[in-house]
Amino acid sequence: MASPKKKLQGLVAATITPMTEHGEINFSVIGQYVDYLVKEQGVKNIFVNGTTGEGLSLSISERRRVAEEWVTKGRNKLDQVVIHVGALSLKESQELAQHAAEIGADGIAVIAPFFLKPWNKVRAEEVLDGIQEKIPTFQGLKFSDTDLLDFGQCVDQNRQRQFAFLFGVDEQLLSALVMGATGAVGSTYNYLGKKTNQMLEAFERKDFSSALNHQFCIQRFINFVVKLGFGVSQTKAIMTLVSGIPMGPPRLPLQKASREFTDNAEAKLRSLDFLSFNDLKDGNLEACS
Amino acid sequence: MASPKKKLQGLVAATITPMTEHGEINFSVIGQYVDYLVKEQGVKNIFVNGTTGEGLSLSISERRRVAEEWVTKGRNKLDQVVIHVGALSLKESQELAQHAAEIGADGIAVIAPFFLKPWNKVRAEEVLDGIQEKIPTFQGLKFSDTDLLDFGQCVDQNRQRQFAFLFGVDEQLLSALVMGATGAVGSTYNYLGKKTNQMLEAFERKDFSSALNHQFCIQRFINFVVKLGFGVSQTKAIMTLVSGIPMGPPRLPLQKASREFTDNAEAKLRSLDFLSFNDLKDGNLEACS
Amino acid sequence: MASPKKKLQGLVAATITPMTEHGEINFSVIGQYVDYLVKEQGVKNIFVNGTTGEGLSLSISERRRVAEEWVTKGRNKLDQVVIHVGALSLKESQELAQHAAEIGADGIAVIAPFFLKPWNKVRAEEVLDGIQEKIPTFQGLKFSDTDLLDFGQCVDQNRQRQFAFLFGVDEQLLSALVMGATGAVGSTYNYLGKKTNQMLEAFERKDFSSALNHQFCIQRFINFVVKLGFGVSQTKAIMTLVSGIPMGPPRLPLQKASREFTDNAEAKLRSLDFLSFNDLKDGNLEACS
Amino acid sequence: MASPKKKLQGLVAATITPMTEHGEINFSVIGQYVDYLVKEQGVKNIFVNGTTGEGLSLSISERRRVAEEWVTKGRNKLDQVVIHVGALSLKESQELAQHAAEIGADGIAVIAPFFLKPWNKVRAEEVLDGIQEKIPTFQGLKFSDTDLLDFGQCVDQNRQRQFAFLFGVDEQLLSALVMGATGAVGSTYNYLGKKTNQMLEAFERKDFSSALNHQFCIQRFINFVVKLGFGVSQTKAIMTLVSGIPMGPPRLPLQKASREFTDNAEAKLRSLDFLSFNDLKDGNLEACS
Repeated sequence: MASPKKKLQGLVAATITPMTEHGEINFSVIGQYVDYLVKEQGVKNIFVNGTTGEGLSLSISERRRVAEEWVTKGRNKLDQVVIHVGALSLKESQELAQHAAEIGADGIAVIAPFFLKPWNKVRAEEVLDGIQEKIPTFQGLKFSDTDLLDFGQCVDQNRQRQFAFLFGVDEQLLSALVMGATGAVGSTYNYLGKKTNQMLEAFERKDFSSALNHQFCIQRFINFVVKLGFGVSQTKAIMTLVSGIPMGPPRLPLQKASREFTDNAEAKLRSLDFLSFNDLKDGNLEACS
Repeated sequence: MASPKKKLQGLVAATITPMTEHGEINFSVIGQYVDYLVKEQGVKNIFVNGTTGEGLSLSISERRRVAEEWVTKGRNKLDQVVIHVGALSLKESQELAQHAAEIGADGIAVIAPFFLKPWNKVRAEEVLDGIQEKIPTFQGLKFSDTDLLDFGQCVDQNRQRQFAFLFGVDEQLLSALVMGATGAVGSTYNYLGKKTNQMLEAFERKDFSSALNHQFCIQRFINFVVKLGFGVSQTKAIMTLVSGIPMGPPRLPLQKASREFTDNAEAKLRSLDFLSFNDLKDGNLEACS
Repeated sequence: MASPKKKLQGLVAATITPMTEHGEINFSVIGQYVDYLVKEQGVKNIFVNGTTGEGLSLSISERRRVAEEWVTKGRNKLDQVVIHVGALSLKESQELAQHAAEIGADGIAVIAPFFLKPWNKVRAEEVLDGIQEKIPTFQGLKFSDTDLLDFGQCVDQNRQRQFAFLFGVDEQLLSALVMGATGAVGSTYNYLGKKTNQMLEAFERKDFSSALNHQFCIQRFINFVVKLGFGVSQTKAIMTLVSGIPMGPPRLPLQKASREFTDNAEAKLRSLDFLSFNDLKDGNLEACS
Repeated sequence: MASPKKKLQGLVAATITPMTEHGEINFSVIGQYVDYLVKEQGVKNIFVNGTTGEGLSLSISERRRVAEEWVTKGRNKLDQVVIHVGALSLKESQELAQHAAEIGADGIAVIAPFFLKPWNKVRAEEVLDGIQEKIPTFQGLKFSDTDLLDFGQCVDQNRQRQFAFLFGVDEQLLSALVMGATGAVGSTYNYLGKKTNQMLEAFERKDFSSALNHQFCIQRFINFVVKLGFGVSQTKAIMTLVSGIPMGPPRLPLQKASREFTDNAEAKLRSLDFLSFNDLKDGNLEACS
């Protein structure tokens, strides 16, 4: 596998897999999608075929073709393309990992076993213990839980290593940044990447009040959609609204987001100024109210 | 799909997928396995590639080959061979269903979505409502929960239909029989089928005290292994002990059952007379203590 | 404590605590309530100050007065009056137990710790192991879970003892009867006691088809209200409807059942013939449809 | 109720209720306990009769006496004494609130209903909506969950109000500080108050690397004891070790911490320099390893 030019950091968009009205993959818009992420959202890393991308609802051959398309279209535009290769069958997972290396992906990621699994909750901190001996190419962790004791200890116990500690709970990213997160992987960075980057920059310059204002703006939107019922189907509808690129419906077992959801989400996006992308002055709460 | 000669009833063994020490499928013992189920356990129906068979840990091509082997070896010996075709990708599920029909399986089964899924707990009773309109070939239900209100209402509301109501919680099958179960699917019927059939027969002739004694004998074993930690790995070890047919280790992410588990399980099997298969006289609790 | 004339068996109504519109205890209707249970429902055992009775929402002094009233009004009419004395403070629990003995209650019951508690789920079967050495007056168990492996092993391992094994999941009582339950404690026996007794009688005479029909009738009602949202508030509203005795609203934190719930429940009770109490002929499903 | 001199902020120790070997309350050491918190830990606010204080295991009269003792001994030494008055019986809760006012406590706190409760998870953000209209004296919130979307929105939506937003998950306090927490309530502040105050000061001066080092030191200890099994019993043992004041065993249903736990915890406290209280130089990780 091509070793990454640099450590993975900053925002990583968990890409949606665009589909036609009939649930077939719509490869034709992926190039446009890449340009949108880079130019409009300032997001230069992607996480392909994860939960947001309905990776586990795709066949193995579909996953290969989707990965190829993102790698091809992202060449010389994206910093890192990470392919999720997790599958219930380790054989298929290994096949996908081999394929990712062959096509020149920058990295792979795998979800932990979720059907047949060990008895107890596995703590990430314990999984990382000695992982480089087991996986010499191990680069980092996507942590998608709110247990920041576990996350903090992952960071604390691996300080001397160059791991990427990517947080996966978008609505509270700021709480993980202060705990040592080096970046984030999430679905909202597809359409709130620019806003989230403003938060990262404020945090970097220790302007906490601005960082918190940005986080609260983001939370207002997520809090709103969470109450309506928020998942992959809704993410596809929101991204279509914000980017103008048709993401299409989800594939079964998911149902298309309701018209009611889409209308409500659009109104909220407008009220928070998330559709027009005027820069928000720090602390300009009105723009978020 | 070949329509079944008769309604699926009685015990259905959720088959184990035998493996070599290296985790490859050991097709060579499947014929012997069929004979063992029929002759030693009196079990003439099987459920292939389910959880017990590590179906979701196999690749699609492995699942096809395993299904073919069971159908071939079971011909003229088994009543019904049901192939589990559930997969996270509906496309793959459809491919497996088509294949099951082509090889002459008696039926297929699918697990409900378990990764991306609807918001609320789905009640089986609601799923069955009008299902024949959606699935004309629908034959029955494998119910693996202890909520016997839901199970009972499945039976109650579908009395006029010829559905099979198969219960999947082996350790309390008797409680479902009285609620209208027409059969059972489970992993323990691989090695406790004979004993469980004695319970079914006692229930049929309304000899409840005997039926309960048989249920309690079975519970004593399951209660014992549950406390030690009981799953697919342990089922493979127990079946190897009882049948003498090598089931091999499980495939990752599962770990092989510990030597300590196997020793304890063997001692318990002996004390309950589950290794020698002498008929137990009804009410002869000593043989179970 | 007065030792019970006989082992507690059959149905035990978890009594409601009648209240005025202002949430004060309405002692005046308890005598009438006793007569209703005995004459209309054929229920001669009660469980006072449990969850259904909002026992934990009452002050200690209120719990004493409620217990006294039931014991007094039940004298020479009820077989057994069991007082729930569980409290978060063991001191208060002990005080209530002492009081129950002084007023001549037939027994006491205590809920397991539910605020500060041990690490793991405690299995009833393990709790009963050697309990008579710890509690010489121990008489039995109220089991309110659907894990019938645990329940069955409680029965199996204590056969030689004269324990009462009372099942607490009304909607699936039949499944516990076949597993050795000697009786049942529940809120629905306040208004479905007569119907449930018909099920017990059919089970006793091994008429399973009738017993199952009765169970299904009961399930149809419970299944209906469970979907509407069913708890103590709704139980008070239903009992008021069926018995004609005003049970009043619940006490905070519970909210009074909605008018919509009450109207729907009443219609269902009528359709199932649960308001008029004409005997249902065995297998007369129409009366339940 | 005496209105507080100032908004509650900083650390609030959830006090332990010291007990004798026989489980009776040991009032005699409470004065010494107050001095220890103020002088050794720099903690000047307390939360009495909460979970850590086994408040719900005490009788109502015991809770009154405990509250009186803390108020008396804390006079002119502590900034604020908050009495937890939550009880399953609202009548008893109201009685305790009245009593707290009479004895001059600075505030009261109540836990949300936890036995009989509403159907859905209640979000704190929704509870706070319009709360001042319902509770004019409402002063703030103790938030003990890791859902920092909910916590953040509590802060965001109530900025113009002078509420105290106290975080209750000690091991990740830093993540809540950045999200707008104004203080914290917890059991570890009894013995890690000094260390935690160092973190608060570093955060105030925007020295994040120091703040994070302090948080990690604290996490190392909590992470260690959590793996051993950490609860109120263990908190009593640790506080006895660190403060030298005998806290005694917990009251049933809790069991005394094992000798093995105490030995391990003591060794860890020493290795982290939490027994001797030498100031740790910022970033001096060795002192924490």
